[in-house]
Amino acid sequence: MVGKLPKSPLAPAAFPALAPIAGVRLAGCAVGLKASGAKDLMVAELAAGTTIAGTLTRSRCPSAPVEWCRSALPGGQARAIIVNSGNANAFTGLAGDTTVAETVRAASAAFGCAEQQVFVASTGVIGVPVPPDYIAGKLPLMVEALAGDTWHDAAQSIMTTDTFAKGATQTATIDGVPVTLSGFAKGSGMIAPDMATMLGFIFTDAAIAAPALQQLVAATVDRTFNCITVDSDTSTSDTVLVAATGQAQHDPITDPSDPRGSDFTAALDRIMTDLATQIVRDGEGATKFITIDVSGAASDRAARVIGLSIANSPLVKTAFAGGDANWGRIVMAVGKAGEAADRDRLSIAMGGIDITRNGQLVPNYDEAPVAAHLAGQQVTVAVDVGIASGRARVWTCDLTHGYITINGDYRS
Amino acid sequence: MVGKLPKSPLAPAAFPALAPIAGVRLAGCAVGLKASGAKDLMVAELAAGTTIAGTLTRSRCPSAPVEWCRSALPGGQARAIIVNSGNANAFTGLAGDTTVAETVRAASAAFGCAEQQVFVASTGVIGVPVPPDYIAGKLPLMVEALAGDTWHDAAQSIMTTDTFAKGATQTATIDGVPVTLSGFAKGSGMIAPDMATMLGFIFTDAAIAAPALQQLVAATVDRTFNCITVDSDTSTSDTVLVAATGQAQHDPITDPSDPRGSDFTAALDRIMTDLATQIVRDGEGATKFITIDVSGAASDRAARVIGLSIANSPLVKTAFAGGDANWGRIVMAVGKAGEAADRDRLSIAMGGIDITRNGQLVPNYDEAPVAAHLAGQQVTVAVDVGIASGRARVWTCDLTHGYITINGDYRS
Repeated sequence: MVGKLPKSPLAPAAFPALAPIAGVRLAGCAVGLKASGAKDLMVAELAAGTTIAGTLTRSRCPSAPVEWCRSALPGGQARAIIVNSGNANAFTGLAGDTTVAETVRAASAAFGCAEQQVFVASTGVIGVPVPPDYIAGKLPLMVEALAGDTWHDAAQSIMTTDTFAKGATQTATIDGVPVTLSGFAKGSGMIAPDMATMLGFIFTDAAIAAPALQQLVAATVDRTFNCITVDSDTSTSDTVLVAATGQAQHDPITDPSDPRGSDFTAALDRIMTDLATQIVRDGEGATKFITIDVSGAASDRAARVIGLSIANSPLVKTAFAGGDANWGRIVMAVGKAGEAADRDRLSIAMGGIDITRNGQLVPNYDEAPVAAHLAGQQVTVAVDVGIASGRARVWTCDLTHGYITINGDYRS
Repeated sequence: MVGKLPKSPLAPAAFPALAPIAGVRLAGCAVGLKASGAKDLMVAELAAGTTIAGTLTRSRCPSAPVEWCRSALPGGQARAIIVNSGNANAFTGLAGDTTVAETVRAASAAFGCAEQQVFVASTGVIGVPVPPDYIAGKLPLMVEALAGDTWHDAAQSIMTTDTFAKGATQTATIDGVPVTLSGFAKGSGMIAPDMATMLGFIFTDAAIAAPALQQLVAATVDRTFNCITVDSDTSTSDTVLVAATGQAQHDPITDPSDPRGSDFTAALDRIMTDLATQIVRDGEGATKFITIDVSGAASDRAARVIGLSIANSPLVKTAFAGGDANWGRIVMAVGKAGEAADRDRLSIAMGGIDITRNGQLVPNYDEAPVAAHLAGQQVTVAVDVGIASGRARVWTCDLTHGYITINGDYRS
């Protein structure tokens, strides 16, 4: 086990002040799942009438909590979310399923709700079963601690190798009624070591029917959490849940394309982008935050595939770590993406400075200003593949010696 | 530019003694394309009647030489192969095409053959055009140097960041007549920096009609060169060519499934496996050679996808670098591959020692002997995904600080 990691140089100055959400109370406590004694259990209590939507990992080997959430999400109603760190409850066979079942049963009794209204997530070491009633036994203590302003505790309780807690808040109006979104996330890459993973939880007092919320969440996750990568590895436990308590005084949104909900949708996009990019800023070993804009692709989907091919290339990421304006590796990554591209119409810029245009270096190309841009912590790359008008933005970080050190001896 | 790299700890003791091939003469010389003054141009002269087959990168941004080979391969006849290192002739627009055209024209005059019988490959820095007649102008000097026993010179001439020259030789019989295969390759990963790449050239005196040879080569490359990975990056220039001079005294093979050719096919598999695994042994920063066997998959193709997902995972590769028996990351990589897998039937072994069986740790699992295996230079991993009977073997190396150092400042 590596010791406590220094805070990422890309971290925000401080955890933001998160607005309370009517109908949401949170607790984050230490219950002994982490050997370090740090906070490791989060409970969110949700008022009656809360709708929920979410997206889960596409891994073919998902954890037991992910399988539970997949079965409960179609119900669209939630009264509690229970998340532990320190143990992923993955690859624990029948014992893992039993732990989930015991936790859900105890929560349904504690909150007076159906089991299908309890959602769970786990992150941490794998293959080590938790005693089935361990988390269930901690619920009374957690219920005591519930409060409306304990966002920082909650965000800390779900961290694994994260070097800072990640929170964000946004406001919007629906029918002129102000609504608030607050949320937190964890992750030190698309995956953190040992099947710890990316988790995100967002709460709002808006009133959004569950089917409409599910469509809004799926589309927004696709543009935000699904557009970040640290190392191309996909965890068994990735989970994003959005809970809407409906306590704001507006008529409910039931149609995801209802124009009354457009300001809310924009706020959902902002809060998810904020949390997703905070995860990249905590990428293992990261020293640079990299934004990649792809245009001119055959479709928006093709643009994202090309962007992620660039963002996942170890050669591109090591070049950025070295501050090397190695645009040839970007050509390579565009080529290997498998999407339509025209070598002789490919244009690349970094930091807003044109490097190639139409498949060749720009005349009198001067690398000095590009190198100066790459020496900073914020790097921008723009690629036009010259085929059509598809576009996408993806975010990543550089690949450094720090990543090797963190992951070469995480368990030992 | 990093200085001269130390020889890989996984390198063979010495360059092997390669048998000459009737109908093949080679030259490898220094002509000034590499700033270091090392050998950088290889010419192979092939006797009249030589058939050729090959496979080329699937990159959507291929180099000019790759595009030329793709157009010439259907002819199936070859009289010369010309390969330079020190300059990839990629992303050089029309100038790159002109350099290829001038080279091919000069070689067709020098060897008295059609332009379609000349094959070219280039590897090295990109985006810097070579003067169109530069390589053409060196051909007279190369022709002077042609000989039948200059394999080591030839192999050295195509190296970029390789730390050792890679050669192999095999024999087989067709109709009781002995035939020989000799060849060489370069690559320090599926891709080496700056769009340098994997190249392989194999020569035989067997008589194999071009269409049959193409089918044999495509199938064998799929099991060998296409089953190695260092960093998941695919170059713009990957090229494997196999030339058969037909000077052995047996009746030609015209059908790839002709049982008379089965011993040759087995030898082709052995020589390609030998060269492919030598490339992995020279993987940038590699300290361990890793063989991954996947069984129980839905199909052989699915097994290869799962094997490459494990072999390409930065988390798996850094764990091996640290000698960490982190089998949870293998579960993760199986899950993200997207192929059918059953979490509760997944079995994993390392060094022949069972770790998990049917989705759970084996009873009384003892990590000590696994850790001892991982401390060595040769690591084996076996994964059964519990679905059907598809199987595949892939090869890779670990991901170390050396990779970051080499690629973080290759150009600067």
